[in-house]
Amino acid sequence: MILRDPVHGLVAFERPAEKIVLRLLDTREVQRLRRVRMLGVTALAFPGAEHSRFAHAVGATYVMTAFLQRIRSLEQELSASERPSLEDEQQGLAAALLHDLGHGPLSHLFEEVFDGAPRHERWTSALVLDPDSQVHRALSEVDRAMPQAVERLVHGKHHKAWLAHAVSGTFDVDRCDYLLRDSYMTGVRYGLYDLPWLLRSLRVARNARGDATIAVEGSKGLPAVEGFFLARLFMYQQVYFHKASRAAERMIRAIFARAADIERDGGDSALPPVLRAMARGATVSTNDYVSLDDGTLWSTIERWESEAADAVLRDIATRLRRRALFKSATLDEEEAPRAQELLESLREIVAKAGFDPRYYAALDVASTGVFDDPPDPADALYVCYNRRAPKLLSRASLLLKKLAGERLVAPRLVFPVEVRDAVAALLGRSPQLALALPSSP
Amino acid sequence: MILRDPVHGLVAFERPAEKIVLRLLDTREVQRLRRVRMLGVTALAFPGAEHSRFAHAVGATYVMTAFLQRIRSLEQELSASERPSLEDEQQGLAAALLHDLGHGPLSHLFEEVFDGAPRHERWTSALVLDPDSQVHRALSEVDRAMPQAVERLVHGKHHKAWLAHAVSGTFDVDRCDYLLRDSYMTGVRYGLYDLPWLLRSLRVARNARGDATIAVEGSKGLPAVEGFFLARLFMYQQVYFHKASRAAERMIRAIFARAADIERDGGDSALPPVLRAMARGATVSTNDYVSLDDGTLWSTIERWESEAADAVLRDIATRLRRRALFKSATLDEEEAPRAQELLESLREIVAKAGFDPRYYAALDVASTGVFDDPPDPADALYVCYNRRAPKLLSRASLLLKKLAGERLVAPRLVFPVEVRDAVAALLGRSPQLALALPSSP
Amino acid sequence: MILRDPVHGLVAFERPAEKIVLRLLDTREVQRLRRVRMLGVTALAFPGAEHSRFAHAVGATYVMTAFLQRIRSLEQELSASERPSLEDEQQGLAAALLHDLGHGPLSHLFEEVFDGAPRHERWTSALVLDPDSQVHRALSEVDRAMPQAVERLVHGKHHKAWLAHAVSGTFDVDRCDYLLRDSYMTGVRYGLYDLPWLLRSLRVARNARGDATIAVEGSKGLPAVEGFFLARLFMYQQVYFHKASRAAERMIRAIFARAADIERDGGDSALPPVLRAMARGATVSTNDYVSLDDGTLWSTIERWESEAADAVLRDIATRLRRRALFKSATLDEEEAPRAQELLESLREIVAKAGFDPRYYAALDVASTGVFDDPPDPADALYVCYNRRAPKLLSRASLLLKKLAGERLVAPRLVFPVEVRDAVAALLGRSPQLALALPSSP
Amino acid sequence: MILRDPVHGLVAFERPAEKIVLRLLDTREVQRLRRVRMLGVTALAFPGAEHSRFAHAVGATYVMTAFLQRIRSLEQELSASERPSLEDEQQGLAAALLHDLGHGPLSHLFEEVFDGAPRHERWTSALVLDPDSQVHRALSEVDRAMPQAVERLVHGKHHKAWLAHAVSGTFDVDRCDYLLRDSYMTGVRYGLYDLPWLLRSLRVARNARGDATIAVEGSKGLPAVEGFFLARLFMYQQVYFHKASRAAERMIRAIFARAADIERDGGDSALPPVLRAMARGATVSTNDYVSLDDGTLWSTIERWESEAADAVLRDIATRLRRRALFKSATLDEEEAPRAQELLESLREIVAKAGFDPRYYAALDVASTGVFDDPPDPADALYVCYNRRAPKLLSRASLLLKKLAGERLVAPRLVFPVEVRDAVAALLGRSPQLALALPSSP
Repeated sequence: MILRDPVHGLVAFERPAEKIVLRLLDTREVQRLRRVRMLGVTALAFPGAEHSRFAHAVGATYVMTAFLQRIRSLEQELSASERPSLEDEQQGLAAALLHDLGHGPLSHLFEEVFDGAPRHERWTSALVLDPDSQVHRALSEVDRAMPQAVERLVHGKHHKAWLAHAVSGTFDVDRCDYLLRDSYMTGVRYGLYDLPWLLRSLRVARNARGDATIAVEGSKGLPAVEGFFLARLFMYQQVYFHKASRAAERMIRAIFARAADIERDGGDSALPPVLRAMARGATVSTNDYVSLDDGTLWSTIERWESEAADAVLRDIATRLRRRALFKSATLDEEEAPRAQELLESLREIVAKAGFDPRYYAALDVASTGVFDDPPDPADALYVCYNRRAPKLLSRASLLLKKLAGERLVAPRLVFPVEVRDAVAALLGRSPQLALALPSSP
Repeated sequence: MILRDPVHGLVAFERPAEKIVLRLLDTREVQRLRRVRMLGVTALAFPGAEHSRFAHAVGATYVMTAFLQRIRSLEQELSASERPSLEDEQQGLAAALLHDLGHGPLSHLFEEVFDGAPRHERWTSALVLDPDSQVHRALSEVDRAMPQAVERLVHGKHHKAWLAHAVSGTFDVDRCDYLLRDSYMTGVRYGLYDLPWLLRSLRVARNARGDATIAVEGSKGLPAVEGFFLARLFMYQQVYFHKASRAAERMIRAIFARAADIERDGGDSALPPVLRAMARGATVSTNDYVSLDDGTLWSTIERWESEAADAVLRDIATRLRRRALFKSATLDEEEAPRAQELLESLREIVAKAGFDPRYYAALDVASTGVFDDPPDPADALYVCYNRRAPKLLSRASLLLKKLAGERLVAPRLVFPVEVRDAVAALLGRSPQLALALPSSP
Repeated sequence: MILRDPVHGLVAFERPAEKIVLRLLDTREVQRLRRVRMLGVTALAFPGAEHSRFAHAVGATYVMTAFLQRIRSLEQELSASERPSLEDEQQGLAAALLHDLGHGPLSHLFEEVFDGAPRHERWTSALVLDPDSQVHRALSEVDRAMPQAVERLVHGKHHKAWLAHAVSGTFDVDRCDYLLRDSYMTGVRYGLYDLPWLLRSLRVARNARGDATIAVEGSKGLPAVEGFFLARLFMYQQVYFHKASRAAERMIRAIFARAADIERDGGDSALPPVLRAMARGATVSTNDYVSLDDGTLWSTIERWESEAADAVLRDIATRLRRRALFKSATLDEEEAPRAQELLESLREIVAKAGFDPRYYAALDVASTGVFDDPPDPADALYVCYNRRAPKLLSRASLLLKKLAGERLVAPRLVFPVEVRDAVAALLGRSPQLALALPSSP
Repeated sequence: MILRDPVHGLVAFERPAEKIVLRLLDTREVQRLRRVRMLGVTALAFPGAEHSRFAHAVGATYVMTAFLQRIRSLEQELSASERPSLEDEQQGLAAALLHDLGHGPLSHLFEEVFDGAPRHERWTSALVLDPDSQVHRALSEVDRAMPQAVERLVHGKHHKAWLAHAVSGTFDVDRCDYLLRDSYMTGVRYGLYDLPWLLRSLRVARNARGDATIAVEGSKGLPAVEGFFLARLFMYQQVYFHKASRAAERMIRAIFARAADIERDGGDSALPPVLRAMARGATVSTNDYVSLDDGTLWSTIERWESEAADAVLRDIATRLRRRALFKSATLDEEEAPRAQELLESLREIVAKAGFDPRYYAALDVASTGVFDDPPDPADALYVCYNRRAPKLLSRASLLLKKLAGERLVAPRLVFPVEVRDAVAALLGRSPQLALALPSSP
């Protein structure tokens, strides 16, 4: 199979080890990912960002083929038992394709919709291990032990460290693809880094345990690696933490929280059956879970707009559809330490204005580490030099040394437009000051 | 409002005339376009092609802003009454944004699903003119005559020829955007032409009626225009007429034809209410129409797979989901004239294999003109030179002269894989010969 | 050696067969190409087009590595004796790097400067075969027969047809690189075609003589090949035949023709020694030839501006430096057949205005074939299908069928600005009409 | 005039204020820049980097047109006396085009060739102010005071602070163009930042003196500004401080130092007259200076290779031409403080090997500040927010705060390959360790 991918160009799955990709592509579980958008509600702020988890899964699998090709070209640096076997390659490719299999509607958002619901990693495991899933069958046909091995590998567990890290590590095929893809689709150029050059600069190093792991050649690859982490930082600043999409996510969490509360109180929120089960904390089968996609959520919200008996459901649904998003006020360095206190004040303001603060007032704290060496140095990405001792990334790079341990944090109060003036007063700003309007359709 | 568009870069709607864009963006009818994919099932063949009509509508509106800017810079070539007024600009922008408003699920495909159903242009008119639509209200707020004017302009009718042609003509904002966008999203580079250069080479010419129309400056703009039409040709060859997506479209048409037949025979196909009404030829309100999106069709098909009593519905739904697409055999120059006769033979083959030929056998003829001057030269895009008489495009360009009147035609027999060998025998080919497998996920 | 090339990205010469590239790169003859601009005076019209023959030679060598990689992956379609040997690969790489070795200052222009001077192909042969050249020594070190073999291959002669055609054929590594590179450097996007896709669609076919030749897989590769030939056409229209650079070339030819005339009449034109020898038709050694580069011509012209005793040399040199280029009037379809007659009239006009028509009046006819199958079908690029008989390109492609045999011809009268009005009168145009000014610095 | 620029796309100089650009373009002094490469010897390491100062000057002028357009759109934020006048625009455009006018052969390198020679800024002033230069005449024709004003503006002096900073400041048109252009031409993608977005996010702020200066809108423009400074850092790391080009620069400095020493000792180094005058510290006229270009240096070096009586001149010239560059050993953090001491040892090693250490041993310390707020806050680029007090860049940006005050320093010992083992022993490394070979042609 040869494909055109807008991000990577010509993508081919034609080697014997790659047959497993073709089998998995046609399963119901993988095809479902076509109906789950990669960036959830981000398309509200970046109209181009409409790509699905499926396109990303194919892209990550392509990166794995390129990574394996590089590893094969380094075979002389590996002992016989460390070299990639056919089985390793199959497992690596399957894990790359399936690493996001368990994502629910609107991707990350869904896990936060119902308290206590299993995270997407749990669902990925369940789907791969369930003997009735088509994915499980496709894997078993190759080798009965394959589902188990792939499930472990998806979570970064494999006896060959270089393979484990390529699936889940500082620099893994998931990140390699999503930074480029999200950048390409949003039009935010800052997510671009030089993937071919980075792959070409990969070498084999040995960690403290003596395992062969991935390293980067210092003279060639260091700027490419720095570019990779800066790309990540920029994408978080610009896209993943964008004010408008964070506000929309809050609204979706609020509306489903409301529905769950109604259900738990014995009411009927008109949730479709599978979602109702999840809202009530009941167990949901993998088969039922796979029936969920973005459309499930959106059609539920649309129905609430026109039919919900409950005023909160109807109101927030209407706002979402009309793109009348909640407003947000970013807290500055002096306000941030008082965030909880300000949230309490916000709740009072919101309640006084006649809104239920459980759903109409929130403190949204978006947060990510900029760059960290992993806790266990055996898992780190090393920088190697011509036979000099390899260095930790944070020691080899001027830039990353500066950024190691830093966090990007964006704390925001989120509230309906009706209380904008009161919030401005609370923060001591004039209404026009800090409460910028979302700037996108 | 400032946006990042991956195709056009920085997109701004900030001038007074552009306020109308912001109002229209938040309407229910425009937001629905987010849930209608631009290229229908093409993502089966090109995994990146997941963009929506909404992103395209925003892009076309951007092209209109750039076009109007160029026209304003040519004001000295226009008489006072020909120059763009605020009203003209508003109408042009609204028409650009709304030109696809009536597209049903999976875009063009939907019109062919139910015999006799209104085409998307009719729905666009209905939605703009319906006093209850949010779009109508947004337009009326600006000016009571606006809905009527925009509806006419969407269909290429306006007393200023340059504006009419920019909305619907040889070189209009719709094509300008979709060629670039579909190219960007599929990764097929051939759809790229030089839009900024083309816009910069636009001039004003007078047609036979003395109207000011759009022309292209010969020395600078001709290659850009040639590039535009070749981009169109390549995109048809590579993307729009792709074998896999055409086969998938046939399958979707077949399955809904089956459902409609069941309904007309008084049965219950389990179509959702609005689709059932359409299948039965009943009138559907604009409000109901707007409730339809891609999800409506896909969830119906998914339900058929698991629940349909009817064997045809169930079978084709299963094939679609499993991506076990119908096969197709392209007819060559000698076979094409006997296409109808071959279709009859195919029907017999299919019936003999136990399939209902109404749904399992088709002659699919994809066809488009490569380039034609419009029938009325007053509507043509002229090429102008330093005060020499302007020429028709087909006379000014070596390339387009060669291509004028040519058609790109791809006639194919479409059938289930089970009869592949029999079809090969019918066409006198060995089985492996012409029946290439679809090459994409 | 790993390089960054702006056109091809990561360029690596690391395989054993590629060692020969490193040896050749450091020779005096190859390094000279850094001082010969690819597009001669085109930078007058496209300021970005400053790249050298050296960068192109490295690019063409990269394309050869990619081509050889594709051929190796098709080994099962070749008999043992047809497969690429180490020697074949070395010869192919050397020929790719050296194919332009003999180009004089300002590339193609130089051959037309002195009547009867050897063409660049002759110089390439001479340089490769001269036992004293560093290139010859580098080749001989690998194998004594190598210089001879490479010299033949540069001219498209090799017993393996697929290799001969890759060096010099319809679709060869020279064209593959220069279309992309000239496009990238001028900013004219139309020269872009999809090289990776084209290479991937290459197959082996057998020509009438039974030789294994290069073919293109029809279903995948045809649009890429069409794109390749259209790119070529567009680049000729837009860049290679650009009015300003053609006029500048005419001026340079005129000024050196004047110098040669002075020399032949026994005068002293102050040409530097090697150029003087060439002007007088004397034999020039390869060693002397290699001392020439763009700087040689420009410094000669600069000297003429300030010091030449001869009025013609001084005048044209001054115009060139001041970018006061000759004007040109493109002849239209009705005028072209009378071109010679118009040239005579132009000469009279020019003489009457006090200029020597030998140097100040010219008929410049730029001309190239758009697309032709080669005269011997054994040399053609075939399009192959799944085991159906391969077709000639001109039969397989709707577009190329239309363009086969067509010529792009641009006949222009060239003359000093002083006679512009008289030329306009001659052609029956108003002065402003057809005599557009060059539009670039 | 409309141009295609590969970096910026469509470049137009058509407004009345832009006429001055056309006049200046045709001067001898500006056209000379076509023969001075932007990046000197960097093409040894990056074969694509062959662009000239001329292409950069045109690009910087384009950025100025875009900058002025943005300023005009912000007129309501400026008082009447602060707004751009026709004169301001002319001065800004002229300064952008002429800012590099005084660069000698191989750009920055030339200033270091002869001790005490004036720097390029001095030559720029001299050329603009010299009443006999064509540039001076072109400027005077517009306004007699123009040469003086442009000369001051080139050095960042103008009573309108926003214009002064745009020509010479933290974020000026020079940097804006060269980062993009050097990145485009080398193929090193890291120099790309989002210029259109950055320009669009510019605002007017007031500095401590109350002057209107350029500021960046925080919410939109901050990542673009961060991208700009990171692009700069990456380009220094990857390109400007590249080992191979720094070594080649050292060799050129050494060879001309040798020639100057010969001249000062009363010998004859066969330097061409103008260079000889400079070597001897004599005054050189602007007219003579303008006769120098890259070709002057290269042909001198080439002559030395074949004809120099002096062994050092001949040897280094031969090495340069054969690309047998000096090797370099980068000093690590522990070695750097002992750099002078190590240089002494290197000199001894080199002398012992029979080379003159004055020319064959060097300590090369490439160094640049990563980011600094300017000493006078009135000159800083501010980040502004919706009517909140603007912040200094180093306070507004997480990234730049971390990098402020940091320096990128690359100290290297440079020496001929013959002493490689001895240098390795000196540094306690095995020969293969730190002495990587230059990796480019």
